[in-house]
Amino acid sequence: MKRILILGGGFAGVYVARRLEKLLRPDEASIQLVNQENYLVYQPMLPEVISGSIGITDIVSPIRHLCPRTQLVMREVQGIDLARKVVTVSPGFRPRQLELPYDYLVIALGGVTNFFGMPGMIEHGKPFRTLADALALRNHLIQVLEEADLETDAELRRKLLTFVVAGGGFSGVELMAELNDFVLNVKRSYPRLREEQVRCVLVHPKEHILPEMDQQLALFAERILKARGVEIVANDRVTAATSEKAVLKSGVEIPCKTLASTVPSAVPEVLQKLDCKKDKGRLVASSAMELVGYEGQVWAVGDCAAASTVAGNPVPPTAQHATRAAELVADNIAAAMRGGTARGFAFEGLGKLASLGHFSAIAEIMGVRVSGFPAWVLWRGIYLMKMPGLNRKVRIGLDWLVALVFPPDLVQIKAAKDAGIVRQHFDAGEAVFHQGDLGDNVYIIERGQCEVLRREEHVADLGPGDYFGEMAVLGNVSRNATVRAVVATDVLLIPRTDFHQLKTSVPAFGSVFEDLARKRAEANQKRSD
Amino acid sequence: MKRILILGGGFAGVYVARRLEKLLRPDEASIQLVNQENYLVYQPMLPEVISGSIGITDIVSPIRHLCPRTQLVMREVQGIDLARKVVTVSPGFRPRQLELPYDYLVIALGGVTNFFGMPGMIEHGKPFRTLADALALRNHLIQVLEEADLETDAELRRKLLTFVVAGGGFSGVELMAELNDFVLNVKRSYPRLREEQVRCVLVHPKEHILPEMDQQLALFAERILKARGVEIVANDRVTAATSEKAVLKSGVEIPCKTLASTVPSAVPEVLQKLDCKKDKGRLVASSAMELVGYEGQVWAVGDCAAASTVAGNPVPPTAQHATRAAELVADNIAAAMRGGTARGFAFEGLGKLASLGHFSAIAEIMGVRVSGFPAWVLWRGIYLMKMPGLNRKVRIGLDWLVALVFPPDLVQIKAAKDAGIVRQHFDAGEAVFHQGDLGDNVYIIERGQCEVLRREEHVADLGPGDYFGEMAVLGNVSRNATVRAVVATDVLLIPRTDFHQLKTSVPAFGSVFEDLARKRAEANQKRSD
Repeated sequence: MKRILILGGGFAGVYVARRLEKLLRPDEASIQLVNQENYLVYQPMLPEVISGSIGITDIVSPIRHLCPRTQLVMREVQGIDLARKVVTVSPGFRPRQLELPYDYLVIALGGVTNFFGMPGMIEHGKPFRTLADALALRNHLIQVLEEADLETDAELRRKLLTFVVAGGGFSGVELMAELNDFVLNVKRSYPRLREEQVRCVLVHPKEHILPEMDQQLALFAERILKARGVEIVANDRVTAATSEKAVLKSGVEIPCKTLASTVPSAVPEVLQKLDCKKDKGRLVASSAMELVGYEGQVWAVGDCAAASTVAGNPVPPTAQHATRAAELVADNIAAAMRGGTARGFAFEGLGKLASLGHFSAIAEIMGVRVSGFPAWVLWRGIYLMKMPGLNRKVRIGLDWLVALVFPPDLVQIKAAKDAGIVRQHFDAGEAVFHQGDLGDNVYIIERGQCEVLRREEHVADLGPGDYFGEMAVLGNVSRNATVRAVVATDVLLIPRTDFHQLKTSVPAFGSVFEDLARKRAEANQKRSD
Repeated sequence: MKRILILGGGFAGVYVARRLEKLLRPDEASIQLVNQENYLVYQPMLPEVISGSIGITDIVSPIRHLCPRTQLVMREVQGIDLARKVVTVSPGFRPRQLELPYDYLVIALGGVTNFFGMPGMIEHGKPFRTLADALALRNHLIQVLEEADLETDAELRRKLLTFVVAGGGFSGVELMAELNDFVLNVKRSYPRLREEQVRCVLVHPKEHILPEMDQQLALFAERILKARGVEIVANDRVTAATSEKAVLKSGVEIPCKTLASTVPSAVPEVLQKLDCKKDKGRLVASSAMELVGYEGQVWAVGDCAAASTVAGNPVPPTAQHATRAAELVADNIAAAMRGGTARGFAFEGLGKLASLGHFSAIAEIMGVRVSGFPAWVLWRGIYLMKMPGLNRKVRIGLDWLVALVFPPDLVQIKAAKDAGIVRQHFDAGEAVFHQGDLGDNVYIIERGQCEVLRREEHVADLGPGDYFGEMAVLGNVSRNATVRAVVATDVLLIPRTDFHQLKTSVPAFGSVFEDLARKRAEANQKRSD
C-alpha cells in the first residue's frame, strides 16, 4: 500500500485529499494530511469574523468531516527531507517529534505573513490571514472602542479611533470595508463616541486599488469606500510602525492604535530551507504541478507554488485556482500510481469578486461586469454555493438572515490568556507608572532612557539594560516612585507570574533583581535619614 | 448628581444596572459598571459551549446592549477604599490606574476558582466558570482526541481518553453530561478511536450527586448518567493533580489528561483585603443586601455576599436569586437617594433545574418534580425565556434547531497564542527530548532529576536548578543529546521567542546560558578528541 502525504489544510491540501478519496480504493493508498488546525478556513468570508455576522465556528469546516478517510495529523511541519522521503512534524503531548515517511508528497503549505524589514510591525501590526488573526483583530477593535469610550485625553481618543489597513488588493479592500462598517455600526452602543469622528485609512502602493480587477470596477469600489468615509492613500506603503502610529514610505505618519495588514506574504520558513528550484521563495512547479526535479513523486500546489498553466499564464493565488489545481494533482498522483500520464493545468479562471460590505460588491464573471447590489447577491450566492458541506451552508444562511435583522455584536471573545512577555513603547514625557500605583510588572529598558521621580524630585536615570519595577513585585506593594520616559523608549514587560516562575527557577535571574532591590532600598533609607 | 458604581457584570451587577435605569431619571444619577469583560455570561448554558450547540457569541450578551445608559468600564477592580469612597481599576492602553469615586457602591464581583491547597491543580486542573474556561476546555478536549488518534502507545491513549470532572453539584453534573455526550459524538469522526473505550468519571464528596435536589430526582440523574457510561465516584474528592493523573483523597489515582473542576469557589482577591464583616470570606450583608457597617451606602449581592432572606434562610448562589436580589438592591438605592425605607429580601426560590444532556433533565418547580424529556423541554423553555434580549433568544433558538439536525462540530478555536513560560511534568524514564530532535525550548529543572545521554551513553546528571536545551536554541540546531527523567521531574519550559527576548534584555540571564553552552561545547570537544 502506497503512502500519500499532504502538507497543509487550506483549499489546496483539502481538495487534493477529497479528490484522492474519490479516485483511490481504501486498499490502494493511505492518505495523511498535516495541518496545525483541524479545520479548513473559508478565506473569502474571513473578514465577516470582524463583524460577527457569521458565527466564528461557521466560517471554518472540520477537515475530518471534509475528508473522512484521510488521517489528519494536527501538528506543525518542521522538516521536509526530499532525499530520505520523510517529513518531520512537531511534538504533541509528549515532547517527541513524529516522522512521517511517504511515497507521494503534496506540498500545499500556503503563505505566511512576513513583516521582515518593516520595523515595529511584528509588535504593533495586526496580520490578517488566519482565523486567529481575525479573532485577535476583532478583539482589538472592541478593546480600542471600550478604551476610547473611557479616555478623557482627546488626542489619545483620536488615535484610538483611527484604523489603518495596509494593502488595497482583494483582502485589504474587503477587510477595510468590513472594518469600517463594523466600527460605524457598533459606535452607536458607546454613548460618548456617538459624536466622535472615526478615521479609516486604506494605504495602497499603486495608483488605484484592486489592480487585478477591471479598472472601471476598481474605480466603482473606490467611490463606494470613499462615500462611506474611508480615506484612500494611493502610491504609498506602510514601512514601519510604533505603538502610536503607522509610518509610510513617503514620510507621512498616521497616529493610530490599529494597523492591520494583509501584506506581505511569504512562504513558510520550512520551505525556505528546501533544496529545490524557487521563484521569489515559492517552489517552482511544472504545469502538471510537479516539483521540478521530483516529477512523479512530489507536487507543489496553492500559494506556496509558482506554476504556469499550459497556456503559459502564471497561476494566481486564489481559491478557485487552488481547488482546481488540487484536483489535477490528485488525478496526476493516481496516474503516477497506476502508470498513466500526467495532465497539465489549463484552468484560466472564471472571474473575480470583491465584497464592499453593506449590500455592495463588484464582480467580473466570464467577461461580464456587475457592481453594487446585484454583485453583492452574486457574491453571497457564489460563495455560499462553493462552501463545502450542507451543514455550513445552512448555518451561514441562517447567520446572514439573523444579521439582517439584528445589529452586530460587540462581544469580545478571549479564548486564552495574553502572551506573557511583551514589548511596550513610550514616547518622551510619558510615564510608565506613577508613584502609588499597584505593581504588577517588571520592566527592562531595551532602547531609550527613563527618569525616576520620587515626590516630583529626580532621583535617578535609567538606560538600556536597566530594570525597574522589581521592588513592587518582590514586596508586593505599591510603586514607590514614578518612572517616566525621557526620550522615545521601548521596554520589555515581564508579568508578575512569569517573573516569579523565572526568579524561583533561575537563581541568577532572581539574584540580579534582588541585589538591585536591596541596593535601591538602602539608597532610599539613606535619602530618608 | 449622585454617582452609583457597580462592581461586577454577572447577573447581580447587570440586573442592578437594568433596574436602576428604569427607576432613576438620567439627571438623578450617573451609573458606572466595572467588569473585565464587556458581556454577561449566561451561566446556565455555559456547558453548551463544549459541544458548540450554541454559538460562542450567543451564550453571552453585550452589557452595553443590556443597560445602554450605564457607562461600562472594561477594566479589573484592583482596590476598594470604603473610607475614601474610591475604587481603583487596572490600567488600559496607558499604564495608569483609574480612580472611580462613588456615592453609592454595589459589590457584585461573584466568585473565582481557587485551587489553593490542591497541589498541581493550577497547572493541570481545568477550571470551569468563565467563557474563557469553557473555550479552553473545549479546545483541550479536541486536542486530546486529535492526539489520541495519532498515539500508538496504548497506555497514553487510555490516559488521553479519560475525562475526570470534580464536583457533583449543578454545574459539575451539567458539565459531565455535556462533556460525555460531546466526546462520544465526535469520536465517530476519528477513525482510529471508534473502537476505543472512553472513560468519564464524576467525583463527588457526598453519597449522592446533586445534594440540593430532591433525592429521587438526584437518583434519576445518577441512573441516566450511568446508563450513558459515566462512572460516579461518591464520598471522595480530588485533592491533587499531575499532568498524568488525578489524585483522590482516598488515595485512588485516576490516570488522565483531562481534569475539569467546578469547585472550589472563593471570593475574588480584592475582596479578601476589604475591612468588613465576613463569613467564610464572603461579605456579610443584611437582608436588605446592605454591607454591614455601611448601610445606605454600600450593597453586596450575588455569589460574593453572605445574606439571609427576611425568613432567615441563607440566599443560595443561583441566577434566580441573584437577579431578584439585584432588583431589590436597585430599589433600595433609589430609596436611599430619595429618603425612602429599605426593603428586605423575601424571595425563597421557584425551583431547581439540571440538564442531563441528550434530551433529558430533572426539574423541581414549586414542589412539582419532573424528569426526563418533559424536564428537558422545560429546561430549554425556561432558560430561553429568561435569556435577556430578543436577539439572543432568536439566535439560540436557531442554534438549537441546527444542532438537532447536524452533528456537533470539532473545530478547535484558538484566539490567542499559548501562554509563554509553562511547567511540564515527566515520569521516571520519560524522555524530555531525544538526540536529533529540533530544539524549540529551554528547560529548567524545578524538582527531580534527569540524565543526559549521547548515543545511549550516560554523560551527565542534572538536578533542580539545572538548565538544558539551551545549546539547540542558541545555535538553532538539533538536540545533540537525549535528556531523560530519572525520577518524577517537573521542568519549567521557556519557549524560544521568550528566551531570546530575555537573553537580549537581561544580560545576566543570557550569560548564565551562554557560559553553560560554552562549557558544555568544550566538554563535548574533549570527549571527541
